[in-house]
Amino acid sequence: MTAESLAETKHRRDDAGDRAPAVPRRPAGPVALDGHEATVILERTRASVDPELRAAIDSLPGSMRRIALYHFGWERADGTPSAGNAGKAIRPALVLTAATALGGPVAAGAAVRAAAAVELVHNFTLLHDDVMDRDTTRRHRPTAWTVFGDADAILAGDALQALALGWLAQDPHPAAPAAAARLAACVVELCAGQHADTALERRRPGEVRLDEVLTMAEAKTGALLGCACALGALYAGAGEEDVEALDAFGRQAGLAFQLIDDVIGIWGDPHRTGKPAGADLAARKKSLPVVAALTSGTPAAAELAELYEAPYDKEDVARTALAVERAGGRDWAQDEAADRMARAMDELSRAVPDPEAAGGLLALAEFVTRRTG
Amino acid sequence: MTAESLAETKHRRDDAGDRAPAVPRRPAGPVALDGHEATVILERTRASVDPELRAAIDSLPGSMRRIALYHFGWERADGTPSAGNAGKAIRPALVLTAATALGGPVAAGAAVRAAAAVELVHNFTLLHDDVMDRDTTRRHRPTAWTVFGDADAILAGDALQALALGWLAQDPHPAAPAAAARLAACVVELCAGQHADTALERRRPGEVRLDEVLTMAEAKTGALLGCACALGALYAGAGEEDVEALDAFGRQAGLAFQLIDDVIGIWGDPHRTGKPAGADLAARKKSLPVVAALTSGTPAAAELAELYEAPYDKEDVARTALAVERAGGRDWAQDEAADRMARAMDELSRAVPDPEAAGGLLALAEFVTRRTG
Repeated sequence: MTAESLAETKHRRDDAGDRAPAVPRRPAGPVALDGHEATVILERTRASVDPELRAAIDSLPGSMRRIALYHFGWERADGTPSAGNAGKAIRPALVLTAATALGGPVAAGAAVRAAAAVELVHNFTLLHDDVMDRDTTRRHRPTAWTVFGDADAILAGDALQALALGWLAQDPHPAAPAAAARLAACVVELCAGQHADTALERRRPGEVRLDEVLTMAEAKTGALLGCACALGALYAGAGEEDVEALDAFGRQAGLAFQLIDDVIGIWGDPHRTGKPAGADLAARKKSLPVVAALTSGTPAAAELAELYEAPYDKEDVARTALAVERAGGRDWAQDEAADRMARAMDELSRAVPDPEAAGGLLALAEFVTRRTG
Repeated sequence: MTAESLAETKHRRDDAGDRAPAVPRRPAGPVALDGHEATVILERTRASVDPELRAAIDSLPGSMRRIALYHFGWERADGTPSAGNAGKAIRPALVLTAATALGGPVAAGAAVRAAAAVELVHNFTLLHDDVMDRDTTRRHRPTAWTVFGDADAILAGDALQALALGWLAQDPHPAAPAAAARLAACVVELCAGQHADTALERRRPGEVRLDEVLTMAEAKTGALLGCACALGALYAGAGEEDVEALDAFGRQAGLAFQLIDDVIGIWGDPHRTGKPAGADLAARKKSLPVVAALTSGTPAAAELAELYEAPYDKEDVARTALAVERAGGRDWAQDEAADRMARAMDELSRAVPDPEAAGGLLALAEFVTRRTG
């Protein structure tokens, strides 16, 4: 699995290594863009979305509710209450912040249900991805399938998807049908993205094209961030062009995030990421910098391909990282992330020309891509 | 797995054994209720719903479309077109026939998208249930997970659920939001039913109560039949009472079906079911007649419990079937099926007092419970 829960990743990886940040700071403006603003937005989001989310989950039958409450960190495996660690709520924050940017606080207030629906969809995909990828840890706790078994984790994921789309269908807001259709289309794209990811991982290193990995990352990571922003725009009553611009903003920011996340997966400080150095290389992940390096046509690319075909050897990790770097994978990823972030800003400024109004979305985009928060 | 695809089961099991049918024929009326009427309805349903279904599936990205087309029998595993065997379309037929009963052909015409959505949901649950239950055959072909792997079958199921609810959300019909909310709630109930089924199968024979198995069967089999009828009523503009009555009609007919299906699973003619005699007993299934027998407090119940606890022995199948029968499991199931069918008729006549208008739904209910078609 290449894409990670933005929320979870934030806990483990706070540093993009010893390099300068890929994404240049926005020129000084009227809105303070330090991590503080994003943190405030995220806290406010949790406060307004959590009750809606809890109400949705409480409406589930006991068997499904139990698994969902465990997955969200609100119950332990034995059913006792837990303080909870349901993630940073980046996606619902994007819904509410996009609604605010285009329609002010009233629009944001009306979009709380849509924000909860997006978070439910995100968590349904996490439950299923963990089963498929056999991931055993999520948000510092054993994944649901390791506790309840594959079948129950699949069923709880199915129920969360139904809850998300059904919850939106019951929303009397005039934007709800369009939002539900858009969220459903996004689920299909997420499925195709996850499929592409596993299919790419099964192919030989020399057989993977860079555009394929970019498309996969956009479907798997960018699509839901874009959809979250688009839903906020829909609830603000925005026109089609602005809705699409905000979708594109979220997608591009999501790709920038994925590129930085992939850089950290290779060169991140193990003390800060909580994972051994070069963990993604050890797992032979065809992450974006790796595929950029493999397809660079350089001598280092050939060396990298050979290393990736050979069985894993701990001694080779540093050499592999160096090969990716010498083949230009690291520079490409940093440049591409900056480029994607610039495109995101561009899309944002088209839909929300007022820098003050755009400040919240900008802060969130910088928060997920810079990890300075 | 206790519940079966009604459609598929119809192929394998056409006989309830040498007994008289559990469900008495309806008194003669103005509408002919032989299997012919149901067959005509089902054929007409396929003709109107298939194009909608194909359009929905064609809107999927290639990777997901391929798995869906295979699952529906419209493509072979190698991607070449196939004549298709997508099942008998009982659920979409219930949607359209309920809409006709309460709103005439115009309502039925408007409900085609809802009918397709119900069929998509049904097939999403089949894809996932087959993964969880490790079932290798569906509609006489290898199940999708045996061809594409677990992950792809899970993803294709996820995509079909999204397609179903998203397809409804895009329907401009005024009933669409209520229909989507109802279908989503039904998905949650189906998940809880599948969970209960696997949980019950893991428990010891003496620890399962009859009311638990009835509740499970209602959630797993009855809920979607009821939802299909309710959606038809919603699209006919029916009031809440009629919608609920049609939901109850479908649920009770679904339970009657399950009871008869369970009887056939024990005493059905292997030449007609295509399965060895007593297949459900050999698999130690806690089907409805078995649990009725186990909880009967008779000496035969004790014998049955002992046989069910022991490792499978082919020689014991006939003795086990006899124990279920002597403990009253067979009679109970037949009586209960007749009772459920009577309740179904009762609910139907409340919402649709005109026997002519109710004829189609009656024909479908008899078709699935009598298997004379």
